[in-house]
Amino acid sequence: MVDNSIIVAPATALGGAIAVIRMSGEGSVACCSEVFRGRRALTDAASHTIHYGTICDGERVVDDVVVAVFRAPHSYTGEESVEISIHGSRYIAQEVIRLLCERGARMAEAGEFSQRALAAGRIDLSQAEAVADLIAAESRAAHAVAATQMRGGYSELLDELRAELLNITTLLELELDFSEEDVEFADRSRLRTMLGETDGVVSRLMESFRVGNAIREGVAVAIVGRPNVGKSTLLNRLVGDDRAMVSDIAGTTRDTVEESVVIDDIRFRFIDTAGLHHTEDKLEQMGIERTERAMRQAQIILYMVEPLQSGVEMPQLAEDQQLILVVNKADTTPARNFDDAIYISAREGEGVEELRRALRATVDTEGLYRGEVVVSNMRHFEALSRAHRSLQAAVSALDMGVSEELLAEDIRSAIDALAEITGRITSDDILKNVFANFCIGK
Amino acid sequence: MVDNSIIVAPATALGGAIAVIRMSGEGSVACCSEVFRGRRALTDAASHTIHYGTICDGERVVDDVVVAVFRAPHSYTGEESVEISIHGSRYIAQEVIRLLCERGARMAEAGEFSQRALAAGRIDLSQAEAVADLIAAESRAAHAVAATQMRGGYSELLDELRAELLNITTLLELELDFSEEDVEFADRSRLRTMLGETDGVVSRLMESFRVGNAIREGVAVAIVGRPNVGKSTLLNRLVGDDRAMVSDIAGTTRDTVEESVVIDDIRFRFIDTAGLHHTEDKLEQMGIERTERAMRQAQIILYMVEPLQSGVEMPQLAEDQQLILVVNKADTTPARNFDDAIYISAREGEGVEELRRALRATVDTEGLYRGEVVVSNMRHFEALSRAHRSLQAAVSALDMGVSEELLAEDIRSAIDALAEITGRITSDDILKNVFANFCIGK
Repeated sequence: MVDNSIIVAPATALGGAIAVIRMSGEGSVACCSEVFRGRRALTDAASHTIHYGTICDGERVVDDVVVAVFRAPHSYTGEESVEISIHGSRYIAQEVIRLLCERGARMAEAGEFSQRALAAGRIDLSQAEAVADLIAAESRAAHAVAATQMRGGYSELLDELRAELLNITTLLELELDFSEEDVEFADRSRLRTMLGETDGVVSRLMESFRVGNAIREGVAVAIVGRPNVGKSTLLNRLVGDDRAMVSDIAGTTRDTVEESVVIDDIRFRFIDTAGLHHTEDKLEQMGIERTERAMRQAQIILYMVEPLQSGVEMPQLAEDQQLILVVNKADTTPARNFDDAIYISAREGEGVEELRRALRATVDTEGLYRGEVVVSNMRHFEALSRAHRSLQAAVSALDMGVSEELLAEDIRSAIDALAEITGRITSDDILKNVFANFCIGK
Repeated sequence: MVDNSIIVAPATALGGAIAVIRMSGEGSVACCSEVFRGRRALTDAASHTIHYGTICDGERVVDDVVVAVFRAPHSYTGEESVEISIHGSRYIAQEVIRLLCERGARMAEAGEFSQRALAAGRIDLSQAEAVADLIAAESRAAHAVAATQMRGGYSELLDELRAELLNITTLLELELDFSEEDVEFADRSRLRTMLGETDGVVSRLMESFRVGNAIREGVAVAIVGRPNVGKSTLLNRLVGDDRAMVSDIAGTTRDTVEESVVIDDIRFRFIDTAGLHHTEDKLEQMGIERTERAMRQAQIILYMVEPLQSGVEMPQLAEDQQLILVVNKADTTPARNFDDAIYISAREGEGVEELRRALRATVDTEGLYRGEVVVSNMRHFEALSRAHRSLQAAVSALDMGVSEELLAEDIRSAIDALAEITGRITSDDILKNVFANFCIGK
């Protein structure tokens, strides 16, 4: 599946002072040396050494560069690799890659470097995914989730669970071999305890996905309330700039506007929504539909009212949704008619710090910072769900006294599901899906 | 002016698979080693070696990194330097820089690395400027201009000119010392020849600025013509996407729209303009004013007409402006009423390739690719102009037989002007201006 051609791609974004072109595969050093002119030949260079010189297209000097040489297996991919630091111009990057491709390299596909690291056994699949998450991490919490996963803490835990389950199936299969003698190598009550414990760990991991996903994708907060209650003003205050359109005309905000704000260590995605009111205006009606969709998808409903507003109906919350009641324009009246509400003035900034703290408090990161594994990847969550269902089926099968064969089958399904996460069991489809989300050069 | 503190900044753009944090200054390696954990201590690392490890904030692992060590004077700045390859996340970059700054480094200012390279005599000022140009180069020609300058070809030529002029002033000053004896160490007719030759080179460099500036900034092409003649359609055809608004209603294009296209090795900036016609509409009148401004600033006027259009008045060209007459909608009639015109169908694409060739032919890059110095920097052009004026004054002074003192003064002015280009003579103001245009990390 993975060929061993020489692959090349920019490893950094372009546009800075320098950019790095990364090459990997047996023969990378020789390939690079064909266009490199330095004091010494690259071909004899030791691993982890750096060489100053020029990249040339015949007589024409394309750039002054610094080339780093990595010998197999001491590189990210586990293969012989070269990293060329060039001046950060798109044109130079393109020229250098062209020259290398003319000498036997080919442009890397998305995620291909990581895929090679995977094939070489340098990292497992969940670690490869964590690399992508780490690069995308925009907050301390998202970084912590990805870093734990990349450093293999999650893989170890899954391997332990698999080992435990494999142990059980071995005993069950032994019983099958001796089925005529009606022996029980696996004590049924101990078996039940073990299955229960394993499922407990799997369930805890599944549970962690709610927080993990929120941390990874950003916590979705829908700001809702009547027209002119100050939703856009609050959003601007939270974001600290004037992206959303603010006006005194009711119904100004027709589109949902999303803004990303990191509060302490967590990223929140604030969705300003069209005012909730009855209207004949087609465009506004579309806006209201969008509001309702945003509300359904949000983890937090930030419900805004005015201090003297009457007939306030609290929105219906879905499971896992949290409500924060915010009373805006609190500076205009001393009235404090609402309980459990945060009184603010979006315009003046009063109470906004308290609101930030309340938002931050909705995400429990205690376990994360204690070093616990937090699942943040949908693919992993789905595999865990399958493992969970199989384990539940195994427990039921045990309780109903079904045959060792069926019991072993359920446990095997759970093992396979767990193995999919780290890529011990994998398919081209899974790999394709995973690496399609990577960028070139990763 | 340049302190010797440890400076740190991202050297690459962020957002790729990896990013590079660059540090420079005596003590960089020790500073980095305080947050680095690897198999061996960084402090003993030899120059041009690479070390795999982690960057830690106490017990917390911030990232897996690769650190490259450069010992003075073998680095870009000439100082002890460190380059840390991290995963390309903005969050990690920020954390790593924070940790280093807590341990004695400080954030680098724009262009500060290059400024240190300048202070250490690794590069001269025109080479530092060329680094910035090289990074910004988007076409082969722009790359060639910057690369020649960065490699110091220009500096050598200027040094030769200066040496020649210095030689003359030395002789003139010798005459001054012996002024009572009325000797002429410097043969006046040879002097005149030498000054003429030097001025010839300076003039040729000034001349090259027209091409150099066009290559660096992109050749400005104003597409003008009556409403509905197909200007936007042609622009879209040239750009290859649908950025400009196309419609059949006359006067659709009110704003000038600029699009950048690289034809072969040259970047062209096409300016689509509002239709040229008389109108009472205020907005359209503003558009026409803008058209006229665009025409004045353009190097090429691409004048579009229709095959059967009558009363075509060729626009007045400024010095250095070139006209290309394009007859659009040539597919609608066999009429070929215009001489020296390129007949095209912007809609169908016919003739557009011929137009591209005609555009490319307006820029003479023969000298550039033969290795001649092409001046592309406005600051250099201005310094050359001053040198030219001083040399002209010196020649007049010579012809009029004025004193050695005045003659020597003119020649000294020319020398100083040339010295400004490479930064042999410089001021804080010049340096500030030059490096203000650099980005952080350069």
